[in-house]
Amino acid sequence: MKKFISTPVIRRLPRYCRFLADLQKNGVTRISSRELSQKMGLTASQIRQDLNCFGGFGQQGYGYNVAGLRDEITGILGIGRQYKLVIIGAGNLGHALAAHMPFEQLGFSLVGIFDKKASVAGQLVRGLPVRPMETLDEFCNIARPDAAALCIPTRAAPEICAQLSRLGVKAVWNFTHYDVGMNHPELVCERVHLNDSLMTLCYMMNNPE
Amino acid sequence: MKKFISTPVIRRLPRYCRFLADLQKNGVTRISSRELSQKMGLTASQIRQDLNCFGGFGQQGYGYNVAGLRDEITGILGIGRQYKLVIIGAGNLGHALAAHMPFEQLGFSLVGIFDKKASVAGQLVRGLPVRPMETLDEFCNIARPDAAALCIPTRAAPEICAQLSRLGVKAVWNFTHYDVGMNHPELVCERVHLNDSLMTLCYMMNNPE
Repeated sequence: MKKFISTPVIRRLPRYCRFLADLQKNGVTRISSRELSQKMGLTASQIRQDLNCFGGFGQQGYGYNVAGLRDEITGILGIGRQYKLVIIGAGNLGHALAAHMPFEQLGFSLVGIFDKKASVAGQLVRGLPVRPMETLDEFCNIARPDAAALCIPTRAAPEICAQLSRLGVKAVWNFTHYDVGMNHPELVCERVHLNDSLMTLCYMMNNPE
Repeated sequence: MKKFISTPVIRRLPRYCRFLADLQKNGVTRISSRELSQKMGLTASQIRQDLNCFGGFGQQGYGYNVAGLRDEITGILGIGRQYKLVIIGAGNLGHALAAHMPFEQLGFSLVGIFDKKASVAGQLVRGLPVRPMETLDEFCNIARPDAAALCIPTRAAPEICAQLSRLGVKAVWNFTHYDVGMNHPELVCERVHLNDSLMTLCYMMNNPE
């Protein structure tokens, strides 16, 4: 039943989700692929193609049911699963993610925050105490987190990834420069390339239009 | 002389830069497109095609000169321009970026950090004092920053973007959910979609393989 879906289509799904949530918030109940395409800056035919990958949810002459389409896409993304996530590293970045990411809306539930610095242990972040790294094994054996956000220096990543993998963690949200995919093919990994993003901005400034 | 370069190619340029810098660090002076492709997880023909967009820097039977290729790509990206950047918002995210981003290597020089909270004014971040938002106009009139990183709540973004645009700032590195492109077409904008990234991780966990 499942078929191969290309990475660019997958990467657009969260955008659909976002736009559909906005529409719902504004009381819009249905939308044509033309209107949706204008809002999203895609072509109508691209939207129809994208959504056809999942069976197509539109009706000729009616368009898409906003709530229905959103439900379908969040289902495909697996948002309802609420995977358990830990944050490794309670520095500024770990803190920022803990404080500001709407994890539940994105398919995750934040269950723990860890840091190796003794001075931050016990500090409350989003209602959760920062736990010492030495307690990660015990915590994982009990809480069984599915995923970990790596907010640590790159040099610390190899050891932590090996530990997480051993503890049954299945996925990593990687903010370091460590190549998790290459070294731990057993871990699902999504990497956030802030450096690449800033270089892209530089390119756009250097090559306007 | 300049020709149209597609967005996917542009988005791969920072990756080339990263891999070439690593090679240089390890003393590698030349590399074939085949080797480079294996390291980067692309096909050799894709690499040749990408680099052909910029005139092609390889020689038949020799491959690419690592230092030369890196120089060419950093030149295309405009890294050497060292655009002046300010960070707006000195919360955890602004702090994390100020402390950890290797701005100079990415084409930028960090010249100022601003926050509206009086309690953080004067605090030193990466050797720079956090400045009060009220002084942004005066600062920009003197220092003439080219770009701004938006590390503020989304609700504050419309006003700040209008102000930045008025002050002659040309580009925005956008961490908020405000649609800068739609509202300020005069600003170059690169947006970091952490929410989309986390939803993509959720999809990959929900759809392994």
